[in-house]
Amino acid sequence: MIKIVRAEEFRRKIVSSPDVSKVVAEILEDVRLRGDAAVKEYEERFDRVKLETLELAAHTPAVSTEYLRMLERAAENIRAFHEKQRHEGFMFTPRDGVLLGQRVIPLDTVGVYVPGGTAAYPSSVLMNVIPAVVAGCRRIVVATPPRVRPEIVAAAKIAGASQVFQMGGAQAVAAMAFGTESVPKVDKITGPGNIYVAEAKRQVFGRVGIDMVAGPSEILIIADKDNNPVHLAADMLAQAEHDKLASAVLITDSADLAEKVKSEVERQLQALPREEIAREAIENNSAIILVENLNDAAKIADDFAPEHLELCVAEPFGFMTRIHNAGSIFLGKNSPEALGDYYAGANHVLPTMGTARFSSPLSVDDFVKKTQYIAYSHDALMQSAGDIEAFAMSEGLQGHARSITVRRHD
Amino acid sequence: MIKIVRAEEFRRKIVSSPDVSKVVAEILEDVRLRGDAAVKEYEERFDRVKLETLELAAHTPAVSTEYLRMLERAAENIRAFHEKQRHEGFMFTPRDGVLLGQRVIPLDTVGVYVPGGTAAYPSSVLMNVIPAVVAGCRRIVVATPPRVRPEIVAAAKIAGASQVFQMGGAQAVAAMAFGTESVPKVDKITGPGNIYVAEAKRQVFGRVGIDMVAGPSEILIIADKDNNPVHLAADMLAQAEHDKLASAVLITDSADLAEKVKSEVERQLQALPREEIAREAIENNSAIILVENLNDAAKIADDFAPEHLELCVAEPFGFMTRIHNAGSIFLGKNSPEALGDYYAGANHVLPTMGTARFSSPLSVDDFVKKTQYIAYSHDALMQSAGDIEAFAMSEGLQGHARSITVRRHD
Repeated sequence: MIKIVRAEEFRRKIVSSPDVSKVVAEILEDVRLRGDAAVKEYEERFDRVKLETLELAAHTPAVSTEYLRMLERAAENIRAFHEKQRHEGFMFTPRDGVLLGQRVIPLDTVGVYVPGGTAAYPSSVLMNVIPAVVAGCRRIVVATPPRVRPEIVAAAKIAGASQVFQMGGAQAVAAMAFGTESVPKVDKITGPGNIYVAEAKRQVFGRVGIDMVAGPSEILIIADKDNNPVHLAADMLAQAEHDKLASAVLITDSADLAEKVKSEVERQLQALPREEIAREAIENNSAIILVENLNDAAKIADDFAPEHLELCVAEPFGFMTRIHNAGSIFLGKNSPEALGDYYAGANHVLPTMGTARFSSPLSVDDFVKKTQYIAYSHDALMQSAGDIEAFAMSEGLQGHARSITVRRHD
Repeated sequence: MIKIVRAEEFRRKIVSSPDVSKVVAEILEDVRLRGDAAVKEYEERFDRVKLETLELAAHTPAVSTEYLRMLERAAENIRAFHEKQRHEGFMFTPRDGVLLGQRVIPLDTVGVYVPGGTAAYPSSVLMNVIPAVVAGCRRIVVATPPRVRPEIVAAAKIAGASQVFQMGGAQAVAAMAFGTESVPKVDKITGPGNIYVAEAKRQVFGRVGIDMVAGPSEILIIADKDNNPVHLAADMLAQAEHDKLASAVLITDSADLAEKVKSEVERQLQALPREEIAREAIENNSAIILVENLNDAAKIADDFAPEHLELCVAEPFGFMTRIHNAGSIFLGKNSPEALGDYYAGANHVLPTMGTARFSSPLSVDDFVKKTQYIAYSHDALMQSAGDIEAFAMSEGLQGHARSITVRRHD
């Protein structure tokens, strides 16, 4: 059963993973030195497939036309949202002879990791590849373990990926970070994965960019008394079914609603195919928090900085202005999280574990970088020369000052 | 003497640091548990000062009015540049009943680390604090080792920092990441530091945001024959004097210019107060690369992805369009790097070690985060219900589908 608790009785669990850094480091080094051959050996060892080629030959995936249309409609919504995130650079002339600016340049080549097996989510393919396409990346490669599901191939195609490689785990991350005979060296790697993938991303960070190392998924729902407990329980279970470590928290000021949701969670759990997973998430990491009034809920949510936040209150827009820390906010009673997971268009790769305090949903910004530029005329430089020389000398860097002084006599 | 080489003979040195992870982990844990008392003990041990309070009492720093005015003019330029980086969020309605958007929200509290001793650069204070002020952060704390130079206090004040704490090293990073009795817990830590600071930032990453872990500073200059070798040599030495690991590279198609710069570097080196440092940087990590023609130079620069790039060519703006990877670009012969280090207004915290391929100068973007929001009407949700349910079922997540289905009968 889910627990009904006071705010001070609930804390986010901190999850620690086993240390796989040594085995991952060995795989990375081996792939760096031996390229494709090493990747194929690891695929044989870990995924028990003998691969002729790492790249998946282009083919029409065996999915229904209906499925394709559905993917296309979702992709269209995701594209429309991410188009709004594009920023141009700027250029300005603060005074005569001075020109300053910033360019926004797409990353050249990016790699998207997509987990295999039952966790192979076509929606993740769309959510990672489309922002890169909108950003203008020249080449987007997808890596996913062998026996690639046709849904993944279809999503990669619709999203606009350039190539799909059938490789997984640390060896796939290594292949993309270092490049091999057949896999291009990428500038950044995004996408979720198991602890080997996460550790491999951590280790190649610096050589390539990475998105984030995500923790378990979580939802926080703030609901007033005028809510249907069936809906709220369903939303909590949609989160809980992800993973035994997932967390679903409801905050309400209605003791009556709390009790009803509690029963409803139990009732719906019993009918859920992934009951075992969801039950563990509900019993270990979830709670219903009863507060005196919903003003307290805004403060609790802000401190928690949830990945997903549903505001099931009378005036969700007004309520939202008091929230500063959340990955994605679902406003009102007809905006369940599942809408955002697949379809509405906002990204579903979101900051977990309270990192919404300082980080953001995956976006077009993650697939561009900025470059500044500065152009001064000789006159403009001379007008500033005294200040720059004085500044440099005050920092003990005479060489800096001299690079200005030598230009005084041009 | 600096070497004149062919392009294929030059490689960036990869620097590895000694492993200080264990000692840093101990300091972090100690500060987390014991707060101010632990920080003070480490300050006594490492910096040999007995501190009454960690916060530096507000006072008028002992610097000249001239110095203050110079700082103010630099700060004004930096503010003007960073103001251009502000982005608003967006909101749009792709169809009736659907509202999607993204908010841009300043980080609440940020911590800026400023190294002590001779490397205590007031310019770094301006470059880290001002973007946070422009972003709208509520509280900006500066941490810098005891015996704080008045120039640092003055820069913190002019930039708009809220508080200055006299603490350094891993203990300062820990105090800001965990919070203590007197130091506020921050959301993000930026600023350069020694290997203990860098390792501490690495270890607290996830709990707080960090900017980047910077490598040695570097400049790449592309120059045609019509350049004054005195200027180019001065620019190379301005880079080289930073640090024995710094790197200054000139690419030119003129063998004559290459020889002249080589002699000039030697001549100017002998007159440089920081000759010993600069000489090591010049002899070990720097070079003049001679190319057949400058078209090759653009390609070499793009592969190198330099932190600073000077384009001393006839048409620098046209040349810049072929560069995709660089932190800050200095256009033409009157825009030496020192101009950007202090004064022009662009940031001097830049991606090193080739990370300009995928990362960006420090900017206002580093002090905000984004939050998405989604609001659907019941009608709009119902129009999409079939697609969302089908998508969820195809991923094996029946709970997700049900959170939509239960709303069908509202």
